[in-house]
Amino acid sequence: MLPENIKEVSTPCFLVDIHIVKKNARRMRERCQQFGVQLRPHMKTHKTIEGALVMTGGTKRKIAVSTIAEARFYADNGFDDILYAFPFSADKKERCQKLANELGQFHVMLDSMEGLSSILSTSLEPGKEWSIFLEVDCGYGRTGVDWDSDAAVELATKIDKTNGIQFQGLYTHCGNSYEMGAGPDFIREVGSKTTECLMDLAKKLKNCGVSCKTIGTGSTPNCSLASEKMAALTEFHPGNYIFYDYMQSLLGSCKVDDIACCVATRVISHKVSQQHIVIDCGFLGLSKQGFAENLASGPCLFKGHSNLRLVGVTQELGKVKAIEGEINYSKYPIGSMLFLYPFHSCATAAMHSVYYIHSGEKIVGVWKPTRGW
Amino acid sequence: MLPENIKEVSTPCFLVDIHIVKKNARRMRERCQQFGVQLRPHMKTHKTIEGALVMTGGTKRKIAVSTIAEARFYADNGFDDILYAFPFSADKKERCQKLANELGQFHVMLDSMEGLSSILSTSLEPGKEWSIFLEVDCGYGRTGVDWDSDAAVELATKIDKTNGIQFQGLYTHCGNSYEMGAGPDFIREVGSKTTECLMDLAKKLKNCGVSCKTIGTGSTPNCSLASEKMAALTEFHPGNYIFYDYMQSLLGSCKVDDIACCVATRVISHKVSQQHIVIDCGFLGLSKQGFAENLASGPCLFKGHSNLRLVGVTQELGKVKAIEGEINYSKYPIGSMLFLYPFHSCATAAMHSVYYIHSGEKIVGVWKPTRGW
Repeated sequence: MLPENIKEVSTPCFLVDIHIVKKNARRMRERCQQFGVQLRPHMKTHKTIEGALVMTGGTKRKIAVSTIAEARFYADNGFDDILYAFPFSADKKERCQKLANELGQFHVMLDSMEGLSSILSTSLEPGKEWSIFLEVDCGYGRTGVDWDSDAAVELATKIDKTNGIQFQGLYTHCGNSYEMGAGPDFIREVGSKTTECLMDLAKKLKNCGVSCKTIGTGSTPNCSLASEKMAALTEFHPGNYIFYDYMQSLLGSCKVDDIACCVATRVISHKVSQQHIVIDCGFLGLSKQGFAENLASGPCLFKGHSNLRLVGVTQELGKVKAIEGEINYSKYPIGSMLFLYPFHSCATAAMHSVYYIHSGEKIVGVWKPTRGW
Repeated sequence: MLPENIKEVSTPCFLVDIHIVKKNARRMRERCQQFGVQLRPHMKTHKTIEGALVMTGGTKRKIAVSTIAEARFYADNGFDDILYAFPFSADKKERCQKLANELGQFHVMLDSMEGLSSILSTSLEPGKEWSIFLEVDCGYGRTGVDWDSDAAVELATKIDKTNGIQFQGLYTHCGNSYEMGAGPDFIREVGSKTTECLMDLAKKLKNCGVSCKTIGTGSTPNCSLASEKMAALTEFHPGNYIFYDYMQSLLGSCKVDDIACCVATRVISHKVSQQHIVIDCGFLGLSKQGFAENLASGPCLFKGHSNLRLVGVTQELGKVKAIEGEINYSKYPIGSMLFLYPFHSCATAAMHSVYYIHSGEKIVGVWKPTRGW
């Protein structure tokens, strides 16, 4: 039985504002149209059918996922043209094979000869071909072949020249845009540089007779604060923008009012001797993200209560102090509700097996994410 | 279809060594017998039926839980004498009421007059009475009435004197035993002091005509390195000891060989230009716990590979570097498996919807935890 109002939910509870979700999705679609690029939204933040419908504008086509479990979930629910945006590994090959056989389009990504060998050892049904993206590193330094390396050209050429597989193009995640305090100009600069690197590699490949159908980059900061140069690309694949979060607001990707999700929690204890209040949301309700940043405002934002700071969490409890002065206990009686904008919505959403969807204070639905790998 | 061997699991995967689990459970039971105290194991670390059977020695009686979802899960599976070890709050009262009516014994815990008022407003079926623990703070400084406060005496007396409710006794979580680097003597000292505080309060209550049937304390460090004074208590309620973890080994609660769980992961990328390897385990497979401690060894321990350090995680990826010298890529080919002892097993287990149970390398079962609130 669904609670009627967000003030009636059992806490902690992950809340999603449907109007902000729709607005965030619409703006990203419009931005992609304006830039003349295809939007391939990433599902990793919410992992729900309903969120995917909003992000694809109802087409159920062209999405990126971070796990095989997500790919399977979306395939089973009528989605197609799915990119498994994770370095291909041998232990997942049977499940990838099944998806490639079933779907109209299923793309895998790799950054190594080992990944390619593993794909080559896995045959598909007659009429089916593997579709492969090359993962490129344009300065983030995590996975992917370095954009200016010989290995990038060698691997792309090898994929392209091998019979029975299709070289789809270049994929990069410009995670280096997540630089706290660097500001919007820095983010646009990362977008520009990433684009230059990708176009440079694509040009080199063209000279080798290898053409890239798709050249894409993601990251919510980069796609929210897109540099003009990024119009040279063919695809954006951000994910977090559907919810945004406190971190994105600090980066400048969004305003606080654009954050579509929060965790509802209640005051459950007054600890006057320690000058804190205790809420029923610990790291299982919020995750531990945001603490490492040591922000003066704390690791998350209390909606409408800018003087509150979360100073610590244990499994099911959070300690809250006043940023300035003493805490006003009468303002936060036991049982009163608070709403936390999480530092990183991908991490916080992942702690919840159900999201309550609201319009104003009214609860209008539930979304159930897929989990696991 | 269950994989036969731990080397065949899809990664990341949470593995539990059944023999170590049983050994850890047996040792804690024996310690409690030796101390003459009742063991009321806490379920919050694993949240499974199978783990609860091992911890209770098959009795299905006397457990502590951290959420109403856990209480409901265990009640539905034939467990009884359940303590909901979390400050009672009004929004959970209907669900608590149902459990109190159904179970032979269901105990709630509170630390405020507001909590008590909320209970008093919720009546039980004829013949049923609320059973209430007073949560006491003996120096941890999170929740609970301060052990030496007038409020502790007032609240306990009020509970005891109210018709239709039973005052069960005192509960404290001595989380102040988690002091990295302080060593076993410090932990025993916390255990001694906690016991002194609890006994002092119990004596004061006795002088007021209030008797405590139960006086208990938990925390895995304290119960693993129990001070002799703790024999004065009637109950221990640790939870983490069933798995232990890297943090507990650093605290001295256990040896590394006592850690019963690990996360299986695979090398999926070689990033030679950055001198790291990448594994398919990020914060969704491991949690972010342990990073804040800035340990030279990193936030978790690679089983059998003491020169590896996890330097960072994103959602599904972990970057691993050598602690000394350069990483030996030939030793860690793409596809090779690594096993991570988590920093905090409660947090890591919570990221997984299934645990694979193994005996040696052989997989012998799966445990499915309950989740949510």
